[in-house]
Amino acid sequence: MKQTKLKDIGEFSLINSLQKLIESSAPNNIDPKFQLVAGIGDDTAVWESPKSTQLLTTDTSVEGVHFNSINSQWDDIGWKAMTANLSDIAAMGGIPLYCVISLGLNPDSFTSDILSLYTGILEASNEYGCRVVGGDISKSVPEFINIALFGYCSQKPVTRFGAQVGESVAVTGTVGGALAGLKLLTNNQDKAFSSLTKLERQHVITTHNRPHSARIHEGLKLASSGVSAAIDISDGLYADLSRLCDASKVSAKIHQPLLPVNNSLKSLSSKEQALLALQSGEEYELIYTAPSALVQQLNNSLLTPSTIIGEIIQQEAQSVTVLDRNNDQLCLQVDGWDHFITK
Amino acid sequence: MKQTKLKDIGEFSLINSLQKLIESSAPNNIDPKFQLVAGIGDDTAVWESPKSTQLLTTDTSVEGVHFNSINSQWDDIGWKAMTANLSDIAAMGGIPLYCVISLGLNPDSFTSDILSLYTGILEASNEYGCRVVGGDISKSVPEFINIALFGYCSQKPVTRFGAQVGESVAVTGTVGGALAGLKLLTNNQDKAFSSLTKLERQHVITTHNRPHSARIHEGLKLASSGVSAAIDISDGLYADLSRLCDASKVSAKIHQPLLPVNNSLKSLSSKEQALLALQSGEEYELIYTAPSALVQQLNNSLLTPSTIIGEIIQQEAQSVTVLDRNNDQLCLQVDGWDHFITK
Repeated sequence: MKQTKLKDIGEFSLINSLQKLIESSAPNNIDPKFQLVAGIGDDTAVWESPKSTQLLTTDTSVEGVHFNSINSQWDDIGWKAMTANLSDIAAMGGIPLYCVISLGLNPDSFTSDILSLYTGILEASNEYGCRVVGGDISKSVPEFINIALFGYCSQKPVTRFGAQVGESVAVTGTVGGALAGLKLLTNNQDKAFSSLTKLERQHVITTHNRPHSARIHEGLKLASSGVSAAIDISDGLYADLSRLCDASKVSAKIHQPLLPVNNSLKSLSSKEQALLALQSGEEYELIYTAPSALVQQLNNSLLTPSTIIGEIIQQEAQSVTVLDRNNDQLCLQVDGWDHFITK
Repeated sequence: MKQTKLKDIGEFSLINSLQKLIESSAPNNIDPKFQLVAGIGDDTAVWESPKSTQLLTTDTSVEGVHFNSINSQWDDIGWKAMTANLSDIAAMGGIPLYCVISLGLNPDSFTSDILSLYTGILEASNEYGCRVVGGDISKSVPEFINIALFGYCSQKPVTRFGAQVGESVAVTGTVGGALAGLKLLTNNQDKAFSSLTKLERQHVITTHNRPHSARIHEGLKLASSGVSAAIDISDGLYADLSRLCDASKVSAKIHQPLLPVNNSLKSLSSKEQALLALQSGEEYELIYTAPSALVQQLNNSLLTPSTIIGEIIQQEAQSVTVLDRNNDQLCLQVDGWDHFITK
């Protein structure tokens, strides 16, 4: 059977299909104090809001840069685009509420792929009662997905700039898997991963393609317990912790043996594990700073417990230093991701 | 002097420059009840909000589809991208407040062009005390600009679905100029416009490249006077009025001689004028429906007065009918704009 392409059905027919899909799966657990007045189909979305602290974030995924439909399913691409935004709300200790989705689409795209992309977006947003209330569709090759997500805090938001000298640095869950998955997807013969079992390979590929849900519940607990600073891992533990330190005007000392490396990578050398753990982006775990006693206490209530990986020290030239098991400084070439500089 | 390219300075240096530009021109007239707590440089923007009715909209401009840097200056491209979003807030009777900007950029772009683009965005947003509080930068060729704009209503918002049979249809300002400008930019020898003077040509080109400010003030007046429905002209008077009628489950009868055609087009035949007026998109004027007495009364207070162009009738098969000076139906091939269907 010939599959329908976007250029066959056109923009308005696509919008109708998307609207039906969105409305049929609209979450019914949105806080009634934020009642939606007008959603898709007006100049803007409209909702009522009580006195509150509000959050707005945006994130874009571009074909060939952030995703690739050869290596990933369309619903996974949508899930991940939404998760990237939800994770920013999680890092503030917020609750996601309403979002608008802008798509840049190739006229030769199959309609079924676009609906699948949107299904993934809705799966991720519905998990937290977050609702799509508008959007925009343009022609673009390469394709792109932009999401702007609105949320709120019922308590004081956790910014990046409150970390204090002497506090512990902790991270939820495990790290390293997403980058290993990406490397395997790009080169499934990659010798660096020859020690991984088939199941372990599959596991890290899934970690890359369809990361766990954003750590919204954990972010709420962090905010209510009053941790001093938090950030989510989107560009890598090393790069994102550096940002938190710069914003807080402190530095951090990280102990390599404490890094909670993804279990599927345990057959790698400790240096390989550390490199993956420090550089792996799109993990969507939360890094936070707090007195160590508070971290212990929090771990009794976090759905995804956290691990202390180091401590905050006075500001030095280097924002983050990594020490090996002998307390020697690891000389790692840990690059931040830069979209534009060609190396 | 060799101009710096994005690939020379990289993402983080660009973000620093943009942040400085944004902060140096941040408006100081934002309603203090919506105080910004954290702007650029955290996981999300954060602000305090009183009990209110809130608005969220998004709009994308793609190189080669919505804009072309051969025909337009970068600051004009930025101004227009922002105006498209502001206009959606205007159509609801809202006040724009905070926005996030996502750019897809070519590594070969000149840094000065990107800063110029941003300057145009800030010129348009500052006009209404609207502040850029975050964003996202990705690599993309073609380039794109996505804006998500948050605003609020201090009164009941004006939706598309309240138009009543018997009410007048009115439009602010004039129409037709933007499409004439686009046609002249694409083909400056276009015979259809041979009767226009040099000044008139320049005027309509400017109307296309740098449309007047969004009709925020007018939208506020429309909302406070209780007009029944409104929409802004982004895809053309005919297409957008059809949308308003469909949402309100009514139809509209438009009288061609009443169309407020851009003064620079007065040397064209009345049919050419009508076609331009009905199809010209990106005009950012407001179409609204109200009893004719209210339209007259409103015109005493609108900064940009409006013109009655027709009336709302019971729903017919055709959402909008256009009548000529003899009350005969004009058989115009008025197409909506569809990004994907190739004709």
